[in-house]
Amino acid sequence: MELADRTATWVLAETEAGRLTRGDYLEACLSRIAAREPEVKAWACLEADVARKAAAPGPLSGLPIGVKDVFDTADWPTGCGSPLYAGHRPGHDAAAVALARAAGCVLPGKTVTTEFAYFYPGPTANPHNPAHTPGGSSSGSAAAVGAGMVPFALGTQTAGSVIRPAAFCGVVGYKPTFGTISTFGVKQFGWSLDTVGVFARDLADAALLAEVLSGLPLRPRGDAGAPRIGLYRAARWSVASDPMTAALEAAAAAARAAGAQVAEVELPEACDALFDDQKLVMAYEGARALAHERRCHRDALSAPLLELTDAGAQADPGDYLQARVRTRAARTALGALFAEVDVLLTPPAAGAAPRGLNATGDPAFNRAWTLLGQPCVTLPAGRDSSGLPLGLQLVGGFDDDARLLAAATWLERVLAG
Amino acid sequence: MELADRTATWVLAETEAGRLTRGDYLEACLSRIAAREPEVKAWACLEADVARKAAAPGPLSGLPIGVKDVFDTADWPTGCGSPLYAGHRPGHDAAAVALARAAGCVLPGKTVTTEFAYFYPGPTANPHNPAHTPGGSSSGSAAAVGAGMVPFALGTQTAGSVIRPAAFCGVVGYKPTFGTISTFGVKQFGWSLDTVGVFARDLADAALLAEVLSGLPLRPRGDAGAPRIGLYRAARWSVASDPMTAALEAAAAAARAAGAQVAEVELPEACDALFDDQKLVMAYEGARALAHERRCHRDALSAPLLELTDAGAQADPGDYLQARVRTRAARTALGALFAEVDVLLTPPAAGAAPRGLNATGDPAFNRAWTLLGQPCVTLPAGRDSSGLPLGLQLVGGFDDDARLLAAATWLERVLAG
Repeated sequence: MELADRTATWVLAETEAGRLTRGDYLEACLSRIAAREPEVKAWACLEADVARKAAAPGPLSGLPIGVKDVFDTADWPTGCGSPLYAGHRPGHDAAAVALARAAGCVLPGKTVTTEFAYFYPGPTANPHNPAHTPGGSSSGSAAAVGAGMVPFALGTQTAGSVIRPAAFCGVVGYKPTFGTISTFGVKQFGWSLDTVGVFARDLADAALLAEVLSGLPLRPRGDAGAPRIGLYRAARWSVASDPMTAALEAAAAAARAAGAQVAEVELPEACDALFDDQKLVMAYEGARALAHERRCHRDALSAPLLELTDAGAQADPGDYLQARVRTRAARTALGALFAEVDVLLTPPAAGAAPRGLNATGDPAFNRAWTLLGQPCVTLPAGRDSSGLPLGLQLVGGFDDDARLLAAATWLERVLAG
Repeated sequence: MELADRTATWVLAETEAGRLTRGDYLEACLSRIAAREPEVKAWACLEADVARKAAAPGPLSGLPIGVKDVFDTADWPTGCGSPLYAGHRPGHDAAAVALARAAGCVLPGKTVTTEFAYFYPGPTANPHNPAHTPGGSSSGSAAAVGAGMVPFALGTQTAGSVIRPAAFCGVVGYKPTFGTISTFGVKQFGWSLDTVGVFARDLADAALLAEVLSGLPLRPRGDAGAPRIGLYRAARWSVASDPMTAALEAAAAAARAAGAQVAEVELPEACDALFDDQKLVMAYEGARALAHERRCHRDALSAPLLELTDAGAQADPGDYLQARVRTRAARTALGALFAEVDVLLTPPAAGAAPRGLNATGDPAFNRAWTLLGQPCVTLPAGRDSSGLPLGLQLVGGFDDDARLLAAATWLERVLAG
């Protein structure tokens, strides 16, 4: 395995043992960036020397990190994927960026985002096939990790912007429970939805970074044993591709063979409206969160963004309030389900990354979980016949991220072995 | 009554009827600012001509608004009450500011905040007695409305920063349900706590402004009739002053005499830990939300802020997670109480504004409601023997702001008559 494809956890162990320097690893990552960036276009701005010179002390000292270009940064411009913010310099770091830096991470630049983390795509291509989308909105972060440019990266999810691109790019994605990581300095879209998440090459690295950002103990300690898995053939199962459903069934079978309890589950009726409610909440809040841009710079916004936020500005506020009430009821109802199972196993997306760079795929399999605020992870699960990655999604109980990550780590080991 | 002391609702009706121009009202406000500002010091920055020239169309066209200096503004510096951000120009408006401007409001400047909306005070004095605090952290917004400088103002509440200063300054304060108004462009302290709220001279004005910011229908339509009031002698009742408890008892008696059902209530046991849990959540999240300042500019932070955030950085993450879980359980348990009563009546603070400008008073009567996210209003309720204002607090059900405002409007009328 090439050095740039190693995990941060491996690098930390090797440097601890004196067999590797952090500088050598950083150079391997920077070389990979130089080699792959012309095709992948993961970076909105990039300067290798900045990362070389920024080396700071800390447990993750010198490890390069990709930061989605909706996070404010003191040194790099923060463009938000919009011509409106080209060259914008907020003058300070977003909280998550400051915490990553305080642990020693270095930023070689910023990674491409769709326009304001909505649907209008940037130039990034899938690292496994440049004719296919990397997914979005955290396109550059997912692609950078998938291409071996950095061991981990920051993203955000408002509909499906961490879990889906992680699946498309063949990496681990982790969207913690809503409110686990500070959103300060992150361009807001939906204040009830926006969640800071991470991309990594494996779950140990994802948990390592998320611990730094949240302060919470997330890395599995000891062996939790085989989990109870609820196989959820989502409401939108019919739109899942054959390779996707086959990957899910195979994972369920492997888990069962390794000792997990696997039972098919349905969601409580209280969850029926979540898909449509997420769309409404996103439009309603987006229209208001982007009030400055809509008021002062309407001509600089893309047609899809204007369409969504215009609809949100006109939406019935009573419907929005009802959606909030239904969401809390659904979250409560799901609590009973998570007394029976440790995690749900369900698709992260309808299939592998669609062809074309003019769209980032459909967040149909993500909307409900984001609205609920439940923690989710993407686990890589092989490839389809064309060689594009497939992923699995595991969903955990609200504020029960450690249990989700322990179960996901167990399944990661089973699928690897 | 002088023109500057009129409500926005009155001004809108008079201008609609052709008996007044918005320009005349604005000049009255600007004259009041000129007369009172040397003593009250409500403004962090101020330039009357900017408000004169900014007049924009909209339902609130030309009405001046006070904006706490933790909201980003495109035209004014955003200093956050810290030398670190002196002269800082974010280049865009916070969402709430953009929405107020889109409705026609004009900003004569920015109002004083404590340091990062925590406890270290600015220079603002209470408009009713300059030897007393206006409360905080939204000190300037509350004082500006209390002094008749502007009809309404924006603030934020993380512990008690809207409800308490409103009471101290003799104005209406309204902290909506958590997540009702976008926090984009507001300096973050506790992402589970920070709530944008408003100050006004009466409830109609507060609801008018909050409708513009939230899109929700909040102004009482028709007469809801006498409400069911739960009189809550808070857990910290023993620290309430005699004038405070007398004002509360008098309001309860007046409400009862006017036909309201008034019953003493206790909070469910699930609420017992909320006071301490709010302190923990605020410290834990503050340490992370202010990660950039703590990492890069530690020497420029006040001792109280360092003490709190250092404690938060060291706090047990398991305790923080448990506080989150307990808070959700308490919110659910309170739902049953709000099936029995429309609102709770309870003190907004221990008494009138304390003497001295080196502290902003104690948020003991606010912490639990902020952590729960319940909507709260402050209603003015006369003065103590020294002439300082007293207030009442009404607390409503989560996402049931319209019912709270209807009940509060009923009580406002009863107390006025």
